[in-house]
Amino acid sequence: MERVLVFAPHPDDDVIACGGTIAKHSHKGDSVAIVYLSSGEAGSLVYPPADLILRREAEARQASAVLGVTDLVFLRFPDGYISFQPGYLECLIKLIRDRKPTQIYLPHALESVRDHQMTYQLVSEAAKKAAGPWFQNCGNNTWSTGTILGYEVWTPLQTYHWTEDITDFMEIKLAALRKHQSQIKDTAYDDAVKGLNRYRAVMNNVGQYCECFQVIKAQPGDF
Amino acid sequence: MERVLVFAPHPDDDVIACGGTIAKHSHKGDSVAIVYLSSGEAGSLVYPPADLILRREAEARQASAVLGVTDLVFLRFPDGYISFQPGYLECLIKLIRDRKPTQIYLPHALESVRDHQMTYQLVSEAAKKAAGPWFQNCGNNTWSTGTILGYEVWTPLQTYHWTEDITDFMEIKLAALRKHQSQIKDTAYDDAVKGLNRYRAVMNNVGQYCECFQVIKAQPGDF
Amino acid sequence: MERVLVFAPHPDDDVIACGGTIAKHSHKGDSVAIVYLSSGEAGSLVYPPADLILRREAEARQASAVLGVTDLVFLRFPDGYISFQPGYLECLIKLIRDRKPTQIYLPHALESVRDHQMTYQLVSEAAKKAAGPWFQNCGNNTWSTGTILGYEVWTPLQTYHWTEDITDFMEIKLAALRKHQSQIKDTAYDDAVKGLNRYRAVMNNVGQYCECFQVIKAQPGDF
Amino acid sequence: MERVLVFAPHPDDDVIACGGTIAKHSHKGDSVAIVYLSSGEAGSLVYPPADLILRREAEARQASAVLGVTDLVFLRFPDGYISFQPGYLECLIKLIRDRKPTQIYLPHALESVRDHQMTYQLVSEAAKKAAGPWFQNCGNNTWSTGTILGYEVWTPLQTYHWTEDITDFMEIKLAALRKHQSQIKDTAYDDAVKGLNRYRAVMNNVGQYCECFQVIKAQPGDF
Amino acid sequence: MERVLVFAPHPDDDVIACGGTIAKHSHKGDSVAIVYLSSGEAGSLVYPPADLILRREAEARQASAVLGVTDLVFLRFPDGYISFQPGYLECLIKLIRDRKPTQIYLPHALESVRDHQMTYQLVSEAAKKAAGPWFQNCGNNTWSTGTILGYEVWTPLQTYHWTEDITDFMEIKLAALRKHQSQIKDTAYDDAVKGLNRYRAVMNNVGQYCECFQVIKAQPGDF
Amino acid sequence: MERVLVFAPHPDDDVIACGGTIAKHSHKGDSVAIVYLSSGEAGSLVYPPADLILRREAEARQASAVLGVTDLVFLRFPDGYISFQPGYLECLIKLIRDRKPTQIYLPHALESVRDHQMTYQLVSEAAKKAAGPWFQNCGNNTWSTGTILGYEVWTPLQTYHWTEDITDFMEIKLAALRKHQSQIKDTAYDDAVKGLNRYRAVMNNVGQYCECFQVIKAQPGDF
Repeated sequence: MERVLVFAPHPDDDVIACGGTIAKHSHKGDSVAIVYLSSGEAGSLVYPPADLILRREAEARQASAVLGVTDLVFLRFPDGYISFQPGYLECLIKLIRDRKPTQIYLPHALESVRDHQMTYQLVSEAAKKAAGPWFQNCGNNTWSTGTILGYEVWTPLQTYHWTEDITDFMEIKLAALRKHQSQIKDTAYDDAVKGLNRYRAVMNNVGQYCECFQVIKAQPGDF
Repeated sequence: MERVLVFAPHPDDDVIACGGTIAKHSHKGDSVAIVYLSSGEAGSLVYPPADLILRREAEARQASAVLGVTDLVFLRFPDGYISFQPGYLECLIKLIRDRKPTQIYLPHALESVRDHQMTYQLVSEAAKKAAGPWFQNCGNNTWSTGTILGYEVWTPLQTYHWTEDITDFMEIKLAALRKHQSQIKDTAYDDAVKGLNRYRAVMNNVGQYCECFQVIKAQPGDF
Repeated sequence: MERVLVFAPHPDDDVIACGGTIAKHSHKGDSVAIVYLSSGEAGSLVYPPADLILRREAEARQASAVLGVTDLVFLRFPDGYISFQPGYLECLIKLIRDRKPTQIYLPHALESVRDHQMTYQLVSEAAKKAAGPWFQNCGNNTWSTGTILGYEVWTPLQTYHWTEDITDFMEIKLAALRKHQSQIKDTAYDDAVKGLNRYRAVMNNVGQYCECFQVIKAQPGDF
Repeated sequence: MERVLVFAPHPDDDVIACGGTIAKHSHKGDSVAIVYLSSGEAGSLVYPPADLILRREAEARQASAVLGVTDLVFLRFPDGYISFQPGYLECLIKLIRDRKPTQIYLPHALESVRDHQMTYQLVSEAAKKAAGPWFQNCGNNTWSTGTILGYEVWTPLQTYHWTEDITDFMEIKLAALRKHQSQIKDTAYDDAVKGLNRYRAVMNNVGQYCECFQVIKAQPGDF
Repeated sequence: MERVLVFAPHPDDDVIACGGTIAKHSHKGDSVAIVYLSSGEAGSLVYPPADLILRREAEARQASAVLGVTDLVFLRFPDGYISFQPGYLECLIKLIRDRKPTQIYLPHALESVRDHQMTYQLVSEAAKKAAGPWFQNCGNNTWSTGTILGYEVWTPLQTYHWTEDITDFMEIKLAALRKHQSQIKDTAYDDAVKGLNRYRAVMNNVGQYCECFQVIKAQPGDF
Repeated sequence: MERVLVFAPHPDDDVIACGGTIAKHSHKGDSVAIVYLSSGEAGSLVYPPADLILRREAEARQASAVLGVTDLVFLRFPDGYISFQPGYLECLIKLIRDRKPTQIYLPHALESVRDHQMTYQLVSEAAKKAAGPWFQNCGNNTWSTGTILGYEVWTPLQTYHWTEDITDFMEIKLAALRKHQSQIKDTAYDDAVKGLNRYRAVMNNVGQYCECFQVIKAQPGDF
């Protein structure tokens, strides 16, 4: 059984990027938690930020439930301004040392949106720091995560190493994504990602729908 | 009226990459020619190469007709082994000097398939050479192409500069692509590209379907 | 008629990089505004910062007048320390939504000076954010800028897509640049850029003097 | 049980790069074959090429035997001039379709020596071509290799994803490497790689000696 | 006689990266100073930060003494969070203008650890700013450093330009490194770097042990 | 006294790129030889290739004489099609082993013209091969060149490490360049490079005119 930690810059990135894979993990009985760095309060021209933050966290809870995940962490870093700060990094190191994930999912390094890039930088640095004899104020229980995978949202991967067949979970993924009503009503992310996942499946000859990932770290061990 | 030249490593790459844009050009009355560097004779496990080469050229003629294009050039470079050779380069310089295109479409530089990379290298070098006081054996009528655009087939662009709304031409594009029966029956390229074009449209907020291009050269002139 | 917005890290970068193109826009009757992120108060060993800031803004006004531009915005971010901060980004998103530019000029991404890099990062992110259903506190009137071009000052472009013939505006450009007396007296930027613009013209066969730009975004629309 | 295929530009690259991992595979009962693209006939100032080719193939047999491998393939491409040619590529596609490897090892893409780069380009392209409905003259039995790993010889990897603990096989690796007498007497490759493998082990906290690999492809499957 | 300035993100990086070269400089009578950006207070799970900071500065003094260096500067930027801030940059510009180094050593740009990357960015920007007519509050005595070299610690260089034979100084380097007891007891950095320096020597045919550097700037002047 | 070897893809590249530095070497009494990979027979729309080859070699002799160089080597590789071939590489290895240069100048790796890229690849690979115990048919006298510098012609360097003040040799450089009449009459290379060298001088604060180089290898030795 895996312990999976998914890091999302905003609620809905997790579903767009790897909703099928998350559902597959749940289905197999793996333990999955999703960490939202921001709660996406800048993501609307209609709802005021203070309202939107609660609305989107509620949407995240509904969407995750569809995927079979109830363990959510909202860090509430400021939407649009996730940056490399001591407080943020330490929070993530602690989280990794506490949770001891065997797998981490995060945005890949070249995503065009800045919050996504910063999430990559923060989480990948935190995963390295969590593993070594450093930062005692984040706990003494060092932890080395075996597998770290980068996902795609705004910027398709040009090199990827892992293709996950999500054919049997595509409907669940779309149902989950549609719970993010505040986002979907402006932008048809459900259509977009269905399109991308179909393109990936055909071009890689992997099922009807597939999600692609970049390997950032792969666990050594028995071949 | 534009004079458009589309360069394709194999028959069907033109349709997958920019079939909607080609149809749009035709519709507006632009002059469009398609140059196939190879005729794709290695693209099957069933048809013998000598047979397949004729079959795919016939498919290309049918597909192009759907897009409104009848001016096709088959260079018959060897499929799988397009390379940087004097004969090939000179052939392309001559072609550009003769045709005097105002727009060129070709695969972008980072496509993962080698024939696509080589097509980029050959055609972009030929376009430069065609414009300067060099290579008299390719004709004395130098020609500088104003606009050169890179398209995506196997490897999605991470930075692109031009998004063409092909909503009104998507059905034509798919009809054209399905003429490439020898390819479509093994791999659902029609589904794949419909997915990609939908993803591109939503993420860029450009129509229902859109094709993305990388600007390699943009024509100076009146703003 | 275009609405042009030029973003400069410091007063004089605008003239060095695209003074000829600005003058050409003015001449054609386009509307041009120049936004100075910093006022360059660190740019001297002689004038105290508080004095220099006023001096350089005055120089910018004189130089711009020579180019035919009177609409200037001084943001007064700290010289040498332009960085990615919420306040800065929001200020730029608002500015883009208010001004609704059809063209933006900004430093290209690989300029060696940090303030130039940060200007690229801030403005290009702001242009993306301004276009989508996000950041309501920056106004509800989303705006998508059609054309975004990167210019060169300290680090010549290796790939560029747009070459603007400024032969007829070279003298105006140099006259404008010489208004930046506090800078020119230490460093012969006028000679430098005249040299670069001549090199670019000859090597691209575009007039006597030319400015080169990298296309970051090109407006879709009728071909 | 894995079927492992190791591709080496010259005899001894296999041992330097992944001799410990090869020995580990053998020890576990995996099937391992080593394919030498060239036989290294240019690798000496003393032995004439015609003599050296035989000498180095004999050394490769002895070295491989120490690692527990007897299945060797000598392609005898010309040393120093491995290039992208139809004959070479087809040979490799056939080999992959015939052997049906579950794992491939090859030089990483950024090795500074040209033969290593070309080996990467040839083998990675062959692995892609072998998997699809193409190149019937290389056999109809398409094969998709699950795991492809890039190794380091002349140019250390800056990003790697897999760290193999070879502590228990370091002595075997060095013994194997010393069978390449024609090479070791000029250059202490045994000392060099022992140093590199020790550096990698300490900096990654993986055993006493470790080999690092870049994941080029990772097989999907049970998590 | 050279005036050498070595910049280290944490105490011990200087010795690991270029301890042999430092000792060689000392031996020749060059003036050497070492600047520690942080004092490494996060580098332990055992010692509290306030204690560790003193302990590591003491270790740095002992280690430097072994290398023949007594001129140390501790800037005490926060370990793990070295960042691009006005105060930090100005401090470094002042330091360079005051010290007038003829040679600078710093981490190369692609080191995987963030503090190393930031040290590169801060010091290389400071060296540029120190040379020009800017930042009068950092002193009026501008200084252009002739030679700037990037060193390797966590991420081996893939292209390097300078190979320093440290065979005669390897024992001194290791003796110095072992003074960093708080670090060595967790991680065998002495073994690691001995391995790397041996690998570099053999593969470059430069002595028994060698340190590699990337040239960031080379002094013009008489050839 | 240095032994300098300048490699030029075509006659005139040597003068454009480093004519001032060559003249400076001559002036100091260094030994300089220039190796032309091609003789530029494709470089005109007027002169037939067989005529042009002789004309341009004559021009090269006149231009070199102005720079103080009489030792020229014409390899006559085909203009426009310099490629990586055994015969070419071996020729270059032999040449380096015979000449034993202490300094090499060649086009930098990112030049946009293919012949320039291939010259970089061929010569840099030859310099590596010449230094090691390989390729006995190119002679047994291995030679390691101390300093290798990349120059700029068509594509300006973005990172460079060496700035050579050529103020006192600018007139000589231009006089030499103007001997390449067959080229200058079509394209004002003399104006172009005077512009570039002025730009480089001002922006680097190095004399009135300066040539920039990328260090590819720097000789270790006394600091």
